[in-house]
Amino acid sequence: MSLLVIGSVAFDAIETPFGKTDKIIGGAASYISLSASYFVKPINLVAVVGGDFPQEYIDSIRSKGVDTKGLQIKSTEKSFFWSGKYNYDLNSRDTLITELNVLGNFDPIIPDDYQNCEYLMLGNLSPDVQLKVIERLHNRPKLIVLDTMNFWMDIALDSLKQVISKVDVLTINDEEARQLSGEYQLKKAAQKIMLLGPKYLIIKKGEHGAILFHEDRSFYAPALLLDQVFDPTGAGDTFAGGFLGYIAKKDKTDFDTLKKALVYGSAMASFCVEKFGTENLFNLTEQQIEDRFNQFRIMVEF
Amino acid sequence: MSLLVIGSVAFDAIETPFGKTDKIIGGAASYISLSASYFVKPINLVAVVGGDFPQEYIDSIRSKGVDTKGLQIKSTEKSFFWSGKYNYDLNSRDTLITELNVLGNFDPIIPDDYQNCEYLMLGNLSPDVQLKVIERLHNRPKLIVLDTMNFWMDIALDSLKQVISKVDVLTINDEEARQLSGEYQLKKAAQKIMLLGPKYLIIKKGEHGAILFHEDRSFYAPALLLDQVFDPTGAGDTFAGGFLGYIAKKDKTDFDTLKKALVYGSAMASFCVEKFGTENLFNLTEQQIEDRFNQFRIMVEF
Repeated sequence: MSLLVIGSVAFDAIETPFGKTDKIIGGAASYISLSASYFVKPINLVAVVGGDFPQEYIDSIRSKGVDTKGLQIKSTEKSFFWSGKYNYDLNSRDTLITELNVLGNFDPIIPDDYQNCEYLMLGNLSPDVQLKVIERLHNRPKLIVLDTMNFWMDIALDSLKQVISKVDVLTINDEEARQLSGEYQLKKAAQKIMLLGPKYLIIKKGEHGAILFHEDRSFYAPALLLDQVFDPTGAGDTFAGGFLGYIAKKDKTDFDTLKKALVYGSAMASFCVEKFGTENLFNLTEQQIEDRFNQFRIMVEF
Repeated sequence: MSLLVIGSVAFDAIETPFGKTDKIIGGAASYISLSASYFVKPINLVAVVGGDFPQEYIDSIRSKGVDTKGLQIKSTEKSFFWSGKYNYDLNSRDTLITELNVLGNFDPIIPDDYQNCEYLMLGNLSPDVQLKVIERLHNRPKLIVLDTMNFWMDIALDSLKQVISKVDVLTINDEEARQLSGEYQLKKAAQKIMLLGPKYLIIKKGEHGAILFHEDRSFYAPALLLDQVFDPTGAGDTFAGGFLGYIAKKDKTDFDTLKKALVYGSAMASFCVEKFGTENLFNLTEQQIEDRFNQFRIMVEF
């Protein structure tokens, strides 16, 4: 099955209580693609970087089975750069630098080879760019997953609602679900948000797990209790990559498959946060992923 | 099996965004006893009230199979009174009034009839009072569950650690676990706290569920997604009552039994928050409780 990923590929510079990094591989589409690559290949990537983005970074992403034909390189421009510093509890962070650079006028060009993708992951980007991607696909994918954030609710709510109306699965965090729906109770919030279009809603609660909503049903995956959380950057994107990667691998979109996908997504996110940036997403084994999947079952079985 | 409950029986006056109450039945031991009464009888109650505590309140508690022989009535004094106001999200509250009254010099006298209790629930009280109860029992119960709060960590840490060292199960919330252990990650926090004595630790996370720790194992019960949360007062106590009530009913203290007990406790807490105060704990049916227990299974099964 083919999976198309749209999102940012970027530089991140991260500081946590445990250390700091220089400009490492960042961006939603990087995390999503690397995570999904453990489930299905190839991953077709549509993104944009500047001439400053090292070829070795691109090669390392390609080495995981990610097709980078759709990765535009604007040689005279600079890559998107985000820098942030996490507080002691790792639950809050301060953004130090956001340089949009090439992302400011990103035109998502979809290579012909990618046209017949069956699964589409719209990583966090301007809703206008996300809409363009849907419009430019000749056939509608079997399942479209959309990630977004409060920033777009604040400045582009109409466009955001338009793209939300066209997707199957929306992933947001609990605060964003409350903001988007105007409801505090998550059950009510979920019902209102699904009225906007998506058949499925995933509410991510960070260290408190994630909830999948569908019609009047819900399914809860806790977050694993880890020995060490090192860097939460990209956890949500890694989750989304594992989630849709598993669905694409199974080529099924029923509720039971999505429940398991939620657990695989959570398992991938748990690896992500154990090291800086994307580091832990390069050398996982199938067995490690299965072991962690099984830990979720043990944690909730009674 | 016999269950002994020690804690406050009191007046609460509660204000939430949905309404407010006059002086209704409050206190940890009230919630614990009422909740446990759905699992095992009699519940033996040791507590103290003043002469102002209405006989009808005592009768209503007795009507649920709670033995009130151990409820001291100090006719010339006033009952413990707490008044609080919840904010919009119901996750934070301001205490408006705390009048200790009879609780200030509570001497927990244990009637002879209660001496051979097999299960003991030490509701939130001064650790010195909790210690006295343990010392005054001629035989050690099969399982002792202790509830406490950050207040006692702040002002009576040595006494608290002493009582913690004598119990089998400690229940606290996530912030309290972090305070008590000095560790942010709950897994590490739990390991450190269990070194203080308890074989089991329950970390309550409110709307995010509860985790049971034992040796190197952990078990997670989510909070159900309710249509309406009306008043969170007493949810933790109701949880504890259902938890230990189920254990006493089964008369088993292995990890598998405690896992199910965690779910029953969570189920009882979910009823508690749907109405004001103890209101919803008076008229539940066994079938309602079983249905809710099964909802937990549906919510996590994959």
